[in-house]
Formats: sequence, structure tokens, C-alpha cells
Amino acid sequence: MFNTTTIIGLIAAFCTTLSFLPQALQTIKTKDTSGISLSMYSLFTFGTVLWFIFGIMSTNYPIMIANGITLVLALIILTYKIRYK
Amino acid sequence: MFNTTTIIGLIAAFCTTLSFLPQALQTIKTKDTSGISLSMYSLFTFGTVLWFIFGIMSTNYPIMIANGITLVLALIILTYKIRYK
Repeated sequence: MFNTTTIIGLIAAFCTTLSFLPQALQTIKTKDTSGISLSMYSLFTFGTVLWFIFGIMSTNYPIMIANGITLVLALIILTYKIRYK
Repeated sequence: MFNTTTIIGLIAAFCTTLSFLPQALQTIKTKDTSGISLSMYSLFTFGTVLWFIFGIMSTNYPIMIANGITLVLALIILTYKIRYK
């Protein structure tokens, strides 16, 4: 089965991926994007697209799934930042 | 040398790691953390610590370095969020 290192990696991926959910929910609810950096979410969203492409090219499903979820959440935050800045 | 997939992965890691720099700089400069989610940065920082431990345990230097940098930046943002909420 999974060894300790793999389990730590899976929990790590779960935390960093899911962490964008409360940010997206807060941003949708409050429309408050004043403290959020446009540069961060532009660069981060672009990077996540590249991670997703990397996942496809290396047929790595965990990377595809984790970055697919993160991409949707980051795109929501970026869209709100551009719309309600 | 590097193939296309590896190069895309390296650029992806560069973008998602460095994206937290403009956020940290903006937060330090403006102290405006109103739009930033405390839950996001708590969960994200914890996840990055686990990624860093995962990097050490699997002797994966790119993961150690990328998450070490992200950890410092995320910790700065989290500290400001707690201090200036």
C-alpha cells in the first residue's frame, strides 16, 4: 500500500488544492478583492494551466486532477478581481 | 537535455511559486488583508509545510526548494492577515 512519504504527499496536495476553495467562496460572497494581488492570480492561473498541460503530457492523473480543480478556483478569484477591483 | 514536458513543468513550478511574491509585497506595502481568506492561507501554509517535508523525505530538491520559497511567502501573508485583520 502507500508508504509514509506518499501519504504526506497526498495530504499536502489535498491541502494546497482545497485551500483555494474558502478564498473563492469568500470572494464570491463579499466581492471584496482589495487585498488580493492581480499579479499573483494572473501568474498563478497561468502556472496552473501549465501544470495541467504537464499532467496531460506526462499522463499523471493526480497532477491533472489537482491542478484542474485549482485552475477552476483560481479562475473564479481572478475573474472577480478583474471585475470588482 | 530536458524534454518539452520537463520544460513545461519547470516553467509551471516557477510561475506558481513566484506568484506569491507580488501578493506578499502588496500585503507588506498596503497592510490591506480584507479580501484575503484566513482559512485559505492557514490551510495553504500547512499544506506547503507538508510538501516541504515530502521533498525532504523523498530527497526531491526541486520540491524542497519550490515549497521552501512558497512557505516563506505564504507565512508572511498569513502573519499579516492575523495581525491586520
